[in-house]
Amino acid sequence: MADEIIVAVESLRTLCEQAAGALGVSAEDASILADNLVEADLRGVHTHGTSLLLGYSRRLRSGGTRPSGALTIVHESPGVAVVDGGDGIGQVIGTRAMRLAIEKARRTGIGAVSVRHSNHFGAAASYSMLALPHDMIGFATTNAGARVPPVGGASAVVGNNPLSYAIPAGTQRPVVLDMAQSVVAAGKLGMALRRGESIPLGWALDRDGRPTTDPREGLAGLLLPVGGPKGFGLALVMDALSGGLSAASVGLDLSGPRPDDRPAGVCHFFLALDVASFVPVAEFKARVDKLILDAKSARHAPGVEEIYMPGEIEYNLRDRRLREGIPLLRSLVKDLENLAVELDLPEESRRLSRT
Amino acid sequence: MADEIIVAVESLRTLCEQAAGALGVSAEDASILADNLVEADLRGVHTHGTSLLLGYSRRLRSGGTRPSGALTIVHESPGVAVVDGGDGIGQVIGTRAMRLAIEKARRTGIGAVSVRHSNHFGAAASYSMLALPHDMIGFATTNAGARVPPVGGASAVVGNNPLSYAIPAGTQRPVVLDMAQSVVAAGKLGMALRRGESIPLGWALDRDGRPTTDPREGLAGLLLPVGGPKGFGLALVMDALSGGLSAASVGLDLSGPRPDDRPAGVCHFFLALDVASFVPVAEFKARVDKLILDAKSARHAPGVEEIYMPGEIEYNLRDRRLREGIPLLRSLVKDLENLAVELDLPEESRRLSRT
Repeated sequence: MADEIIVAVESLRTLCEQAAGALGVSAEDASILADNLVEADLRGVHTHGTSLLLGYSRRLRSGGTRPSGALTIVHESPGVAVVDGGDGIGQVIGTRAMRLAIEKARRTGIGAVSVRHSNHFGAAASYSMLALPHDMIGFATTNAGARVPPVGGASAVVGNNPLSYAIPAGTQRPVVLDMAQSVVAAGKLGMALRRGESIPLGWALDRDGRPTTDPREGLAGLLLPVGGPKGFGLALVMDALSGGLSAASVGLDLSGPRPDDRPAGVCHFFLALDVASFVPVAEFKARVDKLILDAKSARHAPGVEEIYMPGEIEYNLRDRRLREGIPLLRSLVKDLENLAVELDLPEESRRLSRT
Repeated sequence: MADEIIVAVESLRTLCEQAAGALGVSAEDASILADNLVEADLRGVHTHGTSLLLGYSRRLRSGGTRPSGALTIVHESPGVAVVDGGDGIGQVIGTRAMRLAIEKARRTGIGAVSVRHSNHFGAAASYSMLALPHDMIGFATTNAGARVPPVGGASAVVGNNPLSYAIPAGTQRPVVLDMAQSVVAAGKLGMALRRGESIPLGWALDRDGRPTTDPREGLAGLLLPVGGPKGFGLALVMDALSGGLSAASVGLDLSGPRPDDRPAGVCHFFLALDVASFVPVAEFKARVDKLILDAKSARHAPGVEEIYMPGEIEYNLRDRRLREGIPLLRSLVKDLENLAVELDLPEESRRLSRT
């Protein structure tokens, strides 16, 4: 597309890493953040990719997000821990907390870590997927700014709290489910807005809690939960796991404007299940493969060429983008390059390589 | 309603318990089964209540379900276990397996148990709720006969695998989420059928995988997943946790007719999280209370009198039915009383007391 530029993966990663470094983030943490953001772009999840760096850098400069990503252990049992992120970078805190859950699962078969005092952590799948190389099942969730009303309600009370499961497979790609709790993502409203289209009733409410078909009103308003009580119930439960099990901020605590110089108070929850502690890994994987292969070879609905598993489209995109580079909006490329100049990065890092 | 009879709770419980005993189930296991079925009726979940006893008794007599509900430990780690239910009664196996998860959580902070060789276990919430008196968060899921197609598919590949979370609260009722993965429960199609109404496109497919507005065709066919990839993804993940982590039957293994004399091969998965191993219980509960109270006092949509939390309607119904008795369909009362005669139960147990 004319408004996109295909940039080289390594060049994008370097810019992110050096920008974080220039903002006071340690080399190790900058590397974690850069990997996380670039991975999301590789998987096609641009809302959680390198575009986040722009807002993150504002918060790092204003003090709302602290550059240190060290975890403080608040409380610990053999299988669980509560950690305090000290208002650091969500991606760094999330990565460390999930690694801790994995360590615990190696000893006890299962490990869970709840996190307080963090920030926006990007794509939930980034963390659940960390379990995969260890032949573990990963689960990740977070709370977020209140955006979803209860069933029968017309004001927001919980975030559109995403959850992600990553399930190792054998011959097949892992199953990676990453879903928020609204009927559609806010991004779909943004797309309708750009195209000048209206949205169906049932996707969103306006600021005053009235049903709307105007994507602009919906974007400024509330997102309706998928399946009514199902989506709302999951959003509520994910907050109890995140903000509840870390005894920190929940629901409306996370509403209202979040100035760049104030802590965001975001909480997360991570879980790792060690497959080998249950059954032989090969036996587990054979069953996941069977589920995938049977699903992919289901009778196809008319007009459907291929049936995709959760995460499969993202894996395919990642393969292609590792070879061909990552298409980014021209405006994003410009913003990132401007940030590099602002942060006085080395001359060779100020321009993203085109492929 | 004219076609309902209000029966006394204790009388219904006694009939179930004695019927199970007459079918070769031990006194302890019969008591677990009776409690489970009557609780579901008390909570208004009649599809998973005492009506199940009729089919269960056929399977117990034909040998597909075995009366013994002893668990064999297949494999164990400090925090997890795989157990074999020996094709026993799902409710008995599920109760014992969840108790084991709770024991493990008491030691390690979190406990998980996967189960193979079980049967239909009724309401998933029966098991997640067992965690509540221990100030633990409970999670329960199961696989089930293939009923749901993948997105873009026109044949079933996974069950409408339910999941349930139970979250302890303080001054408020616990949050009890119990949801299957279809747009609507099969029961809603049954209701439309009884009323002679058609169903909206998007609820179901017919046996040949074609969209249908005929509830009869939908009931004989496939249930579409809620939110497309969300509902399908969750159904797939729940099977990986149940049949995968117990290295037993998954997906299409559970399709096709399930004759009364053959094992059903149903698998479950249970999880318990000990709140006190994370944070002080009172601090956790204060946050759950806040989530509930904020949600219930959200601005109400026009015409809405009260906003209900997951499980709240069921708690209210249970309170009322404990006082007033349980309304059951006249035809069900007759079937249960006929079963009591068939099983030669004591004279005084053959008739359910009306209140």
